[in-house]
Amino acid sequence: MNRPAPAPTEDRRPALTERRPSALAEDGPSPLGGHLDGHRPSPVVEDRPLTLVDGHAHAWSPVSARARFRAGLAGPTAGVSAGHTQVNLISVPADWAYEMLLFCQRNPKPCPVLDVTDAGSWTTVLAEGADLRTDLPRYRVWEHGELVDEPTDARAYWREDLVSFLIGCSFTFEWALAGAGVPIRHVEQGRNVPMYVTNRQCRPAGRLHGPMVVSMRPVPPVHLAAAIRESGLLPAVHGSPVHCGDPSGLGIDDLGRPDFGDPVDAEPDDIPVFWACGVTPQAAVMASRPPFALTHAPGQMFLTDARDEQYRVA
Amino acid sequence: MNRPAPAPTEDRRPALTERRPSALAEDGPSPLGGHLDGHRPSPVVEDRPLTLVDGHAHAWSPVSARARFRAGLAGPTAGVSAGHTQVNLISVPADWAYEMLLFCQRNPKPCPVLDVTDAGSWTTVLAEGADLRTDLPRYRVWEHGELVDEPTDARAYWREDLVSFLIGCSFTFEWALAGAGVPIRHVEQGRNVPMYVTNRQCRPAGRLHGPMVVSMRPVPPVHLAAAIRESGLLPAVHGSPVHCGDPSGLGIDDLGRPDFGDPVDAEPDDIPVFWACGVTPQAAVMASRPPFALTHAPGQMFLTDARDEQYRVA
Repeated sequence: MNRPAPAPTEDRRPALTERRPSALAEDGPSPLGGHLDGHRPSPVVEDRPLTLVDGHAHAWSPVSARARFRAGLAGPTAGVSAGHTQVNLISVPADWAYEMLLFCQRNPKPCPVLDVTDAGSWTTVLAEGADLRTDLPRYRVWEHGELVDEPTDARAYWREDLVSFLIGCSFTFEWALAGAGVPIRHVEQGRNVPMYVTNRQCRPAGRLHGPMVVSMRPVPPVHLAAAIRESGLLPAVHGSPVHCGDPSGLGIDDLGRPDFGDPVDAEPDDIPVFWACGVTPQAAVMASRPPFALTHAPGQMFLTDARDEQYRVA
Repeated sequence: MNRPAPAPTEDRRPALTERRPSALAEDGPSPLGGHLDGHRPSPVVEDRPLTLVDGHAHAWSPVSARARFRAGLAGPTAGVSAGHTQVNLISVPADWAYEMLLFCQRNPKPCPVLDVTDAGSWTTVLAEGADLRTDLPRYRVWEHGELVDEPTDARAYWREDLVSFLIGCSFTFEWALAGAGVPIRHVEQGRNVPMYVTNRQCRPAGRLHGPMVVSMRPVPPVHLAAAIRESGLLPAVHGSPVHCGDPSGLGIDDLGRPDFGDPVDAEPDDIPVFWACGVTPQAAVMASRPPFALTHAPGQMFLTDARDEQYRVA
């Protein structure tokens, strides 16, 4: 499932070869720790975008997409199941659930909560018949803030005390942007969206704290107004951008070296546009080190049955 | 502070005289119980709208408004402190806080949470220097789901384990509606907005359940699109309407007999437009009977320093 290494350019990071989690633990920096140390975090596994795996992925129904993921297919889900809402997953033990829900309420741009399960339940009102333990392309398993595994099936790690939070994903509003004529460069280029840890701290909640993570899309100036307007009408999937232009305004040194996902090629006049990102709870897990957490792998989202239109506010 | 009884018409309920809470407990139905029994709930205290008390109430700064309320002024706050965000208050013991926050997440139209305090704290990031125990016009005190008092100062009832939820109020978007030319009839008529308990059940959360409450504004057909659009752009203060037209669609028998607030006179062509209302948590308190809760009195809101524009999504 590795993505072929792209032709090297100054702006591109070579694709990593697949590594076992144990290899990461032995010789690699931890994802956030590496970043804070001046290194970049390393994904354990790099999957090909599903729109490259199957040119018809945009037409998969959410039920069909989930069945494929349950069967083991993995990869970034940008462009999959047109018009259906994608969500981030963060599952924490019940004694961390109030703080996680409060963290989300206090940081609604990165963490718009679309559903919360009862403890131990792997079902959600957003997708009838789905199993949150198996129906995502790939998971990340965290122990005391350290990434310990990236399985495609999380049943071996499931706990009866897990409360799962489903958080809106910006892949959802890409259909609205595309409909308004905004080019989605990372989809055009067959890559995962680039994501960056910023220097903006979230408002903490109890034991949970951490920096805001953003996704970035290069937008031509002529399309900037539409990109802001169309995403703004979908606050449940992060809404309008949190920043446009100079990445140093968010403490990002090099757009060519994202903390998660792939670098994307921009046209000369493009403006980098930054949206709050649902990987933010993972950054909070890394910084706050709860004993256990289960999340999606960045860019590899849960496909719900909800339609984007259900979340459009006007 | 009683509102003078309006000239009786078929559509109007005579204003009630002020009654002591004990009188209500002795001879009146409880607010929700009465409704469910086929009676209408009775407010304990009826205050005059503050725009009638002071014709310049729209120009009060939030700081000034809170100081007046702290000094004892009471009354509905529609039209007070133009352009500033008003919020509902619901305070519950800490062991009910997760369920209340989850109830709000699961019912985002009636319960958009704008801030949550730490247990025992009476301060909020939304209003520097404010005291949630004193700075609302009037409170309601609930024990086991029964209304026991309506003080203008809640310090005698304060508990160290109270977690306070501040929930967006539709009075906030009335400025946007007025700016778009929509007449706000209850403000024009110097009355509190009418509110109704509906037959729509909220999605429960643990021990918390109850019906959705709505506010109603009669809107001329020519202004309906603007009313829907302008409120929709402010989802943090209930967003777009949940229903328009025939009140029986929400199980409301008689618009002239609201469950909270005052009846409002409509013009012949007006369409009744219903927005989800932040009194919904009070209906949940009545139905779910937590041992203790402290809320605002319906229509008598907390004035924050936040500007409506901060919550406009596009």
